[in-house]
Amino acid sequence: MPDLAALVNERIDSFLGTLFCLLRFKSVSADPLCRQEISRCSDWLVDYLRKLLGHAEANADYGLPVVYAETPAVSDRPTVLLYGHYDVQPAQSEDGWTTDPFEPQVIDGRIVARGIADNKGPLMVYLSALELLKALGPLPVNVKIILEGEEESAGDAIVKYIEAHREKLRCDLIISTDAGGFGRGRPALTYGYRGMVYKQIDVVGPNQDLHSGSFGGLVPNPAQALVRILDRLVEPDGKINVPGLYDKVRPIDPEEHERIAALPRTTEQYLGGIKVKGLVGESEFLPMERLWCRPNLCINGVVSGYTGAGAKTVLPARASAKLSVRIVPDQKPEEISDLLDRAILDLADPAVDVTIETLGTAEPFLGLRTGPAVDAACRASQEVAGVEPARVREGGTVPIMAFFKRHLTDNILALGFTTPDCGAHGPNEFFNLADFRQGIQIVGLMFNYLRNVK
Amino acid sequence: MPDLAALVNERIDSFLGTLFCLLRFKSVSADPLCRQEISRCSDWLVDYLRKLLGHAEANADYGLPVVYAETPAVSDRPTVLLYGHYDVQPAQSEDGWTTDPFEPQVIDGRIVARGIADNKGPLMVYLSALELLKALGPLPVNVKIILEGEEESAGDAIVKYIEAHREKLRCDLIISTDAGGFGRGRPALTYGYRGMVYKQIDVVGPNQDLHSGSFGGLVPNPAQALVRILDRLVEPDGKINVPGLYDKVRPIDPEEHERIAALPRTTEQYLGGIKVKGLVGESEFLPMERLWCRPNLCINGVVSGYTGAGAKTVLPARASAKLSVRIVPDQKPEEISDLLDRAILDLADPAVDVTIETLGTAEPFLGLRTGPAVDAACRASQEVAGVEPARVREGGTVPIMAFFKRHLTDNILALGFTTPDCGAHGPNEFFNLADFRQGIQIVGLMFNYLRNVK
Repeated sequence: MPDLAALVNERIDSFLGTLFCLLRFKSVSADPLCRQEISRCSDWLVDYLRKLLGHAEANADYGLPVVYAETPAVSDRPTVLLYGHYDVQPAQSEDGWTTDPFEPQVIDGRIVARGIADNKGPLMVYLSALELLKALGPLPVNVKIILEGEEESAGDAIVKYIEAHREKLRCDLIISTDAGGFGRGRPALTYGYRGMVYKQIDVVGPNQDLHSGSFGGLVPNPAQALVRILDRLVEPDGKINVPGLYDKVRPIDPEEHERIAALPRTTEQYLGGIKVKGLVGESEFLPMERLWCRPNLCINGVVSGYTGAGAKTVLPARASAKLSVRIVPDQKPEEISDLLDRAILDLADPAVDVTIETLGTAEPFLGLRTGPAVDAACRASQEVAGVEPARVREGGTVPIMAFFKRHLTDNILALGFTTPDCGAHGPNEFFNLADFRQGIQIVGLMFNYLRNVK
Repeated sequence: MPDLAALVNERIDSFLGTLFCLLRFKSVSADPLCRQEISRCSDWLVDYLRKLLGHAEANADYGLPVVYAETPAVSDRPTVLLYGHYDVQPAQSEDGWTTDPFEPQVIDGRIVARGIADNKGPLMVYLSALELLKALGPLPVNVKIILEGEEESAGDAIVKYIEAHREKLRCDLIISTDAGGFGRGRPALTYGYRGMVYKQIDVVGPNQDLHSGSFGGLVPNPAQALVRILDRLVEPDGKINVPGLYDKVRPIDPEEHERIAALPRTTEQYLGGIKVKGLVGESEFLPMERLWCRPNLCINGVVSGYTGAGAKTVLPARASAKLSVRIVPDQKPEEISDLLDRAILDLADPAVDVTIETLGTAEPFLGLRTGPAVDAACRASQEVAGVEPARVREGGTVPIMAFFKRHLTDNILALGFTTPDCGAHGPNEFFNLADFRQGIQIVGLMFNYLRNVK
């Protein structure tokens, strides 16, 4: 291989220019007002990928557009299917952004923008590596790419797309770009993800807002009924108070426990710039075990009544909450969803109306930890970064992983380069520029080593 | 007396015109953006009251303007001090208003607007009655009027004003216009109000919003910590779980219990257009006793995390709640405030930061139920409406009542004409036009009977 570091240096401005174009699209899939930006973003990707690989298309038959692209197939090379998503989480300056989340900037060696860590930045690591390799000659592998626009809103367009186009997506290996790294300068191979069940709870008390003095103590307060449900669902130690929820949680095997305990990273390092007064959760488990191997219920949002400045003595008519339960092998989303609904309704004050909507579900995933593709990634990382990728699980959810495993292949790799404190889903999301550059080199080299993996 | 009904008929368009002018001011004292409207509203009142009574002034030395007006004093007549407020609760169309809350309309016999029931409408009943009497000759009583602009935001400008102008406010009787009626066609004399302690609770977990998958189960969730506090503060039967809170609650005496039980109004009638699946609260007390004679904790607002459309897997950095505890004789606001703070902090997860701000306090009030002023009101009501006013307490809070009693006189009357379902503090607030007209007649006649009450 030629000197990839030098080649990346030569082209970094061009790579960043392309990356910044992608980051500027406000492709927030949860927000119906962003539909047009989603569409413009997928069109842009089709143009870009057509130039890069030869063929590209967007398919909006199943929801927000699924973007698919491929190189002309060469029969003696392995086929790698790259997966990623171009949609992002919502981002508003009130959340604490110090820059415009949709106007990328490089600040103190960090690229800062919504989606830079999840998943536009990591995606462009892979696509930039392909640009590099293409400039050097024929690609060492056949490449297929599938990108979805509903990952952050738990949509299922990609699932329907895959079900309808299984033949076209045939491959020897799937690489997910939607993965994080271990720390500055060290990538990670992620072999497990938690699944999820996401719910919205709506509670209605009286049919209109009331004067809290004239009716408080007689008319049920939906906010009080809601906090009762939300409080009682979680024990002070973080255990989820949903009967049957832990029945199918797979115990952590001793080998994995030892490996997690030995990871060269403190909880403080994992938290990075995050400041917090104390930690919570099941104290009988290591901090990373709590995040990777144990279920968790998280209140993602609550709103009721008057939330503006000053005092308003209102007894609110409605109260709503969003919550998500992260699930682990061998929990089944449908079973957990049902158990959760039952527990919520059991906790509901009969004087109020409680409705529950499931906003998304995803299976947990456990993948392979060894094999030739893993070897290729390790070798590339060792040569470029001087260290093998850490082998980790992730507390987050990449719903498509379990689906890939069931429908396409279980030869699945997730290799990432961001740092755990990258602020994915929060304000001031970032990707270290040095890790972005190193990632391009590692991926370029890895593709080269994958040449003979079939 | 001449035929007051006919006189009201003649002038009703003029009275409504004046009332509508007052209702159009967006005098929301809780909202800092409404400062100018507050100021315009108080200026308008000064102009109006100067024409009506002779002297009027606004004083902004202590906060939002206190409006004061008086007739030239005639020594052989009793002096009546009228009290009211010109500020209103916030109102937004999202709250369920079917009309513009600041563009009054008469719909199906109801005047609909923010503040029409609390307190601009009732205030204009009294002022319209004075207009009538003035047209008939010298007023039967000396009139002083004091109006505040911070009642709905628990401000203390009026308290400071009264402390500084006690001599000027000397009077034989205080009549509060800030009172409700009993039902269609029947006024109420309100001899008791609950007091209040209003708190804002702010909980901070991590210093920024986080990905709930990557950190949920390890980093404390401020929303979870907040719902724990809010839930544990109130027992399922409505009892407030704050140690010591009930120690000074005065038991309901048997005479009052009998009178409340005998009031000719069902809970359904009290609720009026309010629909609710069931009732809550201490079942050992009558519904009206729960509202009038027992403390209650009401969550007035909660907000944390993502509350927009769809799903966002965020672990929020902050969570906030507003809550108010209605208190009754002989509870002291300062004591209850301290007990509440202690209970909240005791319930706080040590892994989060909890701060509490007191947004307002008010003493409970119990006034006289008999005497010549009560007799004048009863006689006027009997003659005009064919029925005496019901004698009731109120679940709401009029903080100034206890202050009047302590600093000016305990000869205090609160006579009101709105219906309990009038939607004060909620959407589509209304005042039956027939009750507005009848109120003017009753007040006119009452002033006449007060001529000799000194």
